[in-house]
Amino acid sequence: MDVITVIRTKRDRGELTDAQIDWVIDAYTRGEVADEQMSALAMAILLNGMNRREIARWTAAMIASGERMDFSALSRPTADKHSTGGVGDKITLPLAPLVAACGAAVPQLSGRGLGHTGGTLDKLESIPGWRALLSNEEMLSVLDTTGAVICAAGDGLAPADKKLYALRDVTGTVEAIPLIASSIMSKKIAEGTGSLVLDVKVGSGAFMKTLDDARELASTMVGLGTDHGVRTVALLTDMATPLGLTAGNALEVRESIEVLAGGGPSDVIELTLALAREMLTAAGLPDADPAKALADGSAMDVWRRMITAQGGDPDAPLPTARETHTLTAPSSGVLTRLDAYAIGVAAWRLGAGRARKEDPVQAGAGIELHAKPGDHITEGTPLLTLHTDTPDRFPYALEPLSTAYDIATPGTPFEPTPVILERIA
Amino acid sequence: MDVITVIRTKRDRGELTDAQIDWVIDAYTRGEVADEQMSALAMAILLNGMNRREIARWTAAMIASGERMDFSALSRPTADKHSTGGVGDKITLPLAPLVAACGAAVPQLSGRGLGHTGGTLDKLESIPGWRALLSNEEMLSVLDTTGAVICAAGDGLAPADKKLYALRDVTGTVEAIPLIASSIMSKKIAEGTGSLVLDVKVGSGAFMKTLDDARELASTMVGLGTDHGVRTVALLTDMATPLGLTAGNALEVRESIEVLAGGGPSDVIELTLALAREMLTAAGLPDADPAKALADGSAMDVWRRMITAQGGDPDAPLPTARETHTLTAPSSGVLTRLDAYAIGVAAWRLGAGRARKEDPVQAGAGIELHAKPGDHITEGTPLLTLHTDTPDRFPYALEPLSTAYDIATPGTPFEPTPVILERIA
Repeated sequence: MDVITVIRTKRDRGELTDAQIDWVIDAYTRGEVADEQMSALAMAILLNGMNRREIARWTAAMIASGERMDFSALSRPTADKHSTGGVGDKITLPLAPLVAACGAAVPQLSGRGLGHTGGTLDKLESIPGWRALLSNEEMLSVLDTTGAVICAAGDGLAPADKKLYALRDVTGTVEAIPLIASSIMSKKIAEGTGSLVLDVKVGSGAFMKTLDDARELASTMVGLGTDHGVRTVALLTDMATPLGLTAGNALEVRESIEVLAGGGPSDVIELTLALAREMLTAAGLPDADPAKALADGSAMDVWRRMITAQGGDPDAPLPTARETHTLTAPSSGVLTRLDAYAIGVAAWRLGAGRARKEDPVQAGAGIELHAKPGDHITEGTPLLTLHTDTPDRFPYALEPLSTAYDIATPGTPFEPTPVILERIA
Repeated sequence: MDVITVIRTKRDRGELTDAQIDWVIDAYTRGEVADEQMSALAMAILLNGMNRREIARWTAAMIASGERMDFSALSRPTADKHSTGGVGDKITLPLAPLVAACGAAVPQLSGRGLGHTGGTLDKLESIPGWRALLSNEEMLSVLDTTGAVICAAGDGLAPADKKLYALRDVTGTVEAIPLIASSIMSKKIAEGTGSLVLDVKVGSGAFMKTLDDARELASTMVGLGTDHGVRTVALLTDMATPLGLTAGNALEVRESIEVLAGGGPSDVIELTLALAREMLTAAGLPDADPAKALADGSAMDVWRRMITAQGGDPDAPLPTARETHTLTAPSSGVLTRLDAYAIGVAAWRLGAGRARKEDPVQAGAGIELHAKPGDHITEGTPLLTLHTDTPDRFPYALEPLSTAYDIATPGTPFEPTPVILERIA
């Protein structure tokens, strides 16, 4: 087996054999196939595609590159959720304790933000004392005692994916549906969850800009999960507009706690409940009532226990940014568009995100939205508030915001985009 | 300027700007752009192409990455030749002294063999004492005193190409016409020759398998040379059949000396004279008579001086392989096909070539052909003789040879393929 033959096969639009895929993933993990060889192969895959058999085998080979976790000793059925990433997407924070409060076990291995999309671990780390890094034993213990855990994936899980993901990030080969699908699903399958709900984002603030691309990614991932015995469902959800009224780390934690307290923005509540119902149904608990668990405080109880179990203080004040700058509405009328990508880029530039994996993030940085599409706004009233510890970034953050919204004359009819666009099972 | 934007531009079928090309070549040479990033870009170029402006700029940027040589102090006009590589292609050996004997200066920077194609430097190194590595001063001195020099390119010439070529070799990105053309031409233009004749090989034993691909490569290179003020002409020549009656290192030196002595196989003589006439015309010496210089021994005189000036002994016996194995004709008839690629692979496996740049080659290894297409052969008489110092390689070398030739019933009409297929200027 030699790597140049494998690269040439895909370069010349051929199909990779099972043996070629198994070998190349293993050899790359061991360092026998070099980064420059794998990146050439990744570009050939991005441009020439892989068929369903190739994607399935590629995923299986990445799972086989590391350990598999086993939750079968838990007394509850496991349910996990994955979002392809968006702006203001704090859903994991209220969702995990909510689903746990309804009787499932939620092992939520999460990631950090890169580029304009936020990361769940970055958000939770704004809670004083909270730790993202747990050993497998600690993770199982938190899961067993509280019903939910949100933590970083250990190094042993799909190491081939970890290496390949870092490589794709620096070689312009992220946007390949076969590679995105196999990356997400190899980690989720290796993690050992019994059921999985995928939140595939569509729109300017998402990796998938069109419904067609999102559908292809969703059905590829649902197929991979099903083939590996994981009950998998996908919702395609809107990411043309940010979710909720905040984008940033501590800002989003605060909004998540509002939802757990029975309040919060309607789109965040709607999506949290829809994903909770899908997770509970997939976990064999179709009669659970997540709306009740939000209303009666039981989800909040799980949240507090989960944060405490990972070293966090749920009562500590959340960090705030040193400086704010408010952008006011330049005219009165109906807000018809508020672009998720522009808000994401601005929040990132304010310090909420990172340009490189090793960069720190600012806990308090981000953007508050004072209106959402469909709202009537009045000239001179606040539209967006920018938060940062480094005010010299304001001009840089304001730049994408100048074309981020449209205001129509008062009384213009407005047709809202639904939060949930499609369901693929 | 950032490399991911450059990679994405080409990945998404865009055109690279002049500034992007200048930056990426310079940053790669300096090590700021990593190998894994350049290999992803090379794969995107291979699959999505470059237009003439992009190729011209890419070539100029590679020239600018290093020093340029200057032959303007020489009293003679300079003429150089480049072959895209084939099996049994020893033409540089008789050609360089022949053209020098006719009045031009021939600075021939040559390479080593890789894969199934031989390398001029490997061939000449089978002459006891001969040195391929010369300083710029030594090279100019040999050129000035003998009229011809065949040596390795110095490290200062187009270092970007040197680095990129080594990368392409291990990442399945060799076969891209824009990258092949810019690699060859950047070295030839930096070398400073006034005129250049390209021998673009077509057929199984060449990189270009079809006349269309060879035409595209030839006209791309002629355009690049002309744009840089080098008088450039290309001949497309047959490489479905090996050139001459030998493939190997010392074996090909012996055949080259036969040609310089006024003998040798007719196809080698024909191609040598055709290329010599093109080089002399391009150098402004259209009235020179290379056939006379072969016949009167003046080309041989230059050969002997040139070999001596580089430390070689032109009278020393050439190395021979320790073992030979002769393949006889399995039937009588007309030899209608003798496949260059199969002969090249077999010679390589016998030890004439190398699998990796750092491997040694065997001076005596290779293959002698006892017949060429069109010849009548008799069952049981020798067809091919295999030479090697490592006889355990015979079975491995014989394997590609079993389907390397066709013998038709006696009297079958045979239409020979011309050696020279087309001329592009």
